[in-house]
Amino acid sequence: MTNSWERRYSRRAKANTGSAIRALLKLTEQPEFISLAGGLPAPESFPIAEIAAAADTVLHEHGAAVLQYSATEGYRPLRELVAQRVSTTTHQLTAENVLITSGSQQALDLLGKVFIDSGDKVIVESPTYLAALQAWNAYEAHYLAAPMDEAGLDPAQLAPLFAQDPKFLYCVPNFQNPTGVTMTLERRQQLVALGAAHQLPLIEDDPYGSLRFEEDALPSLLALADPDDLGVIQLSTISKTLAPGLRVGWIIGPPELISRVALAKQGTDLHTGSLDQAIVHHLIATGFVEHHLPSIVARYRERRDVMLAALNEHFPASTSWTHPTGGMFVWVTLPAEVDATELLSAAIEQGVAFVPGGPFHPDGSGRNTMRLNFSNASPERIATGIARLGNALREF
Amino acid sequence: MTNSWERRYSRRAKANTGSAIRALLKLTEQPEFISLAGGLPAPESFPIAEIAAAADTVLHEHGAAVLQYSATEGYRPLRELVAQRVSTTTHQLTAENVLITSGSQQALDLLGKVFIDSGDKVIVESPTYLAALQAWNAYEAHYLAAPMDEAGLDPAQLAPLFAQDPKFLYCVPNFQNPTGVTMTLERRQQLVALGAAHQLPLIEDDPYGSLRFEEDALPSLLALADPDDLGVIQLSTISKTLAPGLRVGWIIGPPELISRVALAKQGTDLHTGSLDQAIVHHLIATGFVEHHLPSIVARYRERRDVMLAALNEHFPASTSWTHPTGGMFVWVTLPAEVDATELLSAAIEQGVAFVPGGPFHPDGSGRNTMRLNFSNASPERIATGIARLGNALREF
Repeated sequence: MTNSWERRYSRRAKANTGSAIRALLKLTEQPEFISLAGGLPAPESFPIAEIAAAADTVLHEHGAAVLQYSATEGYRPLRELVAQRVSTTTHQLTAENVLITSGSQQALDLLGKVFIDSGDKVIVESPTYLAALQAWNAYEAHYLAAPMDEAGLDPAQLAPLFAQDPKFLYCVPNFQNPTGVTMTLERRQQLVALGAAHQLPLIEDDPYGSLRFEEDALPSLLALADPDDLGVIQLSTISKTLAPGLRVGWIIGPPELISRVALAKQGTDLHTGSLDQAIVHHLIATGFVEHHLPSIVARYRERRDVMLAALNEHFPASTSWTHPTGGMFVWVTLPAEVDATELLSAAIEQGVAFVPGGPFHPDGSGRNTMRLNFSNASPERIATGIARLGNALREF
Repeated sequence: MTNSWERRYSRRAKANTGSAIRALLKLTEQPEFISLAGGLPAPESFPIAEIAAAADTVLHEHGAAVLQYSATEGYRPLRELVAQRVSTTTHQLTAENVLITSGSQQALDLLGKVFIDSGDKVIVESPTYLAALQAWNAYEAHYLAAPMDEAGLDPAQLAPLFAQDPKFLYCVPNFQNPTGVTMTLERRQQLVALGAAHQLPLIEDDPYGSLRFEEDALPSLLALADPDDLGVIQLSTISKTLAPGLRVGWIIGPPELISRVALAKQGTDLHTGSLDQAIVHHLIATGFVEHHLPSIVARYRERRDVMLAALNEHFPASTSWTHPTGGMFVWVTLPAEVDATELLSAAIEQGVAFVPGGPFHPDGSGRNTMRLNFSNASPERIATGIARLGNALREF
């Protein structure tokens, strides 16, 4: 069989040969190694005892339901709770606006399945969330790169992209992955108005919105959209506020779209794990998640502060970085002549890792950029890691 | 936005308009109604207390790991255990041969993603598992219908299908969904030899193999394949032996294919729920699943016997049905002039439901067939349901 597999693969499987960087990062699993590369929450923040108690409660109270096949759209009480939490006086959402997904990554896959035919165009921020590109490469999307800066995606530069009849626009307005940047209110308003004028669906991915370290929250694109003609699809997850091992995310959108996505999900994995959904519902409904959140925020705020201070101390003046007000990532721009992938090899020798920024760019730019994660490592390890990285950079 | 959604959907989303039958079956949720339509396990068989205890154990022993992001390929101890259970003296499999999926349905989706480009041909049994067709419709597969009879898929009739350069052949050799039929040993041997001669991958879906009521198990296609040049991809799940609400299934195949599928899964849902995987691992490793299985088998055997006896008593001589030796389904062939979808409306008025057989046929045949499930309803309700269905049929 051996030589017959390759010729039978689909175009998308042949195109997706995996990441050399991922292979490189597998070298970094020794304990003395400091990885700032991943996007993992702090395991110290997982409320293990509360999750165990919730599992016990939902199994003893609704065991037969929690262990049976269940609705593709998701556990109805959880859908209702999600709808209720995003509803406002102007935007009254119901369970019909919500579909539960197997983590937020599945939301990206299902939207690809529902919208993208081979060669279809989609607008993404440049740089954008790498795993969104991975999800949509499977549907042979063609990316239109929307420029962004420290104020987020710039709507003033979208006209030539909107003119190319894209299927949707995808963005991460709060504490973006990879840059940590937050889109300003003015730009949010402009973007929503543009979307409505062009009847272009906007996908607002918001996994990090609750991880806010300072100031008040800005209104979401969903909250700014016309409630009677909803053109915004909002994605979120409990991966950052509870635990990613429970694979629970959701899509919020108009009921007509939610029904379409449910048809796609039915053939994809039937439904999201019922026990995971019931645990998540229990921990939101009892108020635990809200009560638990400030401790995560305090932890990540401290780690961000440590990282920014260490960057100031150890990085040369020729580099610059973002100052995220929440989330999990800082984005560094190196001198134009530095290739971050080459720097990574040198950094690994110093015992520290990051993710080179190039792959986050749909247009192949960004070779001199890198993403640093501050949520997973302890403050001491972040400080040491940045010092090592500064060394690697100076010697490079 | 309202009128702009439709025009933005992908071809596959537009083609998948949902099932009128599924809508009809939504009428059947009142308690006095008897549904023989679904494919649900008996909820009385769910080991609620043992699953709750396992959740508690794995969370207290490995909480941080069980709640964190984890490997796309699956929880390594579970992969090892699955490999060990299918290994024989001739076929030594390891974790590298196994990828854990979010239920068996996801295995179908991922194999579609990895193998099928628009218009590609795949061979399926006629009739075949409906949800496999749903999964692969998303990749715009073209189906080649392989004839089957009471001895299963007939390899003698495959030559004209093999000649059309299909990507793979898909079959359910044990207690097939929808027919309940089991492929004979001779045909298994012929099929494996044919697959090897044509270098055509065989997908062996085996969700029901453990639900065996009589006689010894036949060797799987995987066990019959050349261990040095594995051309069989085997799928299975814990949905029928433990609980489907825990979404845990797996793909067994050559390591090269498993790596490809892992790349596809990464963009699809990152990984399968870590808590679910750890619970399943615990309950297999401690021997509980093996200990629990005979009680499920005894329960389903009794229900099958009740259904076959009731069919004998209440169905006219012009009908015939299969005599499954395991699994969850009986398949009925009605007189050629009866349309089972029309009969379903009459049956629902009598307070009983089944699934018409037409949609299981990739070639549009089978209008006079139906699938009956015996795993979910109690023996009393099965007997009453078949009596009602006999009435509906006589009055039709």
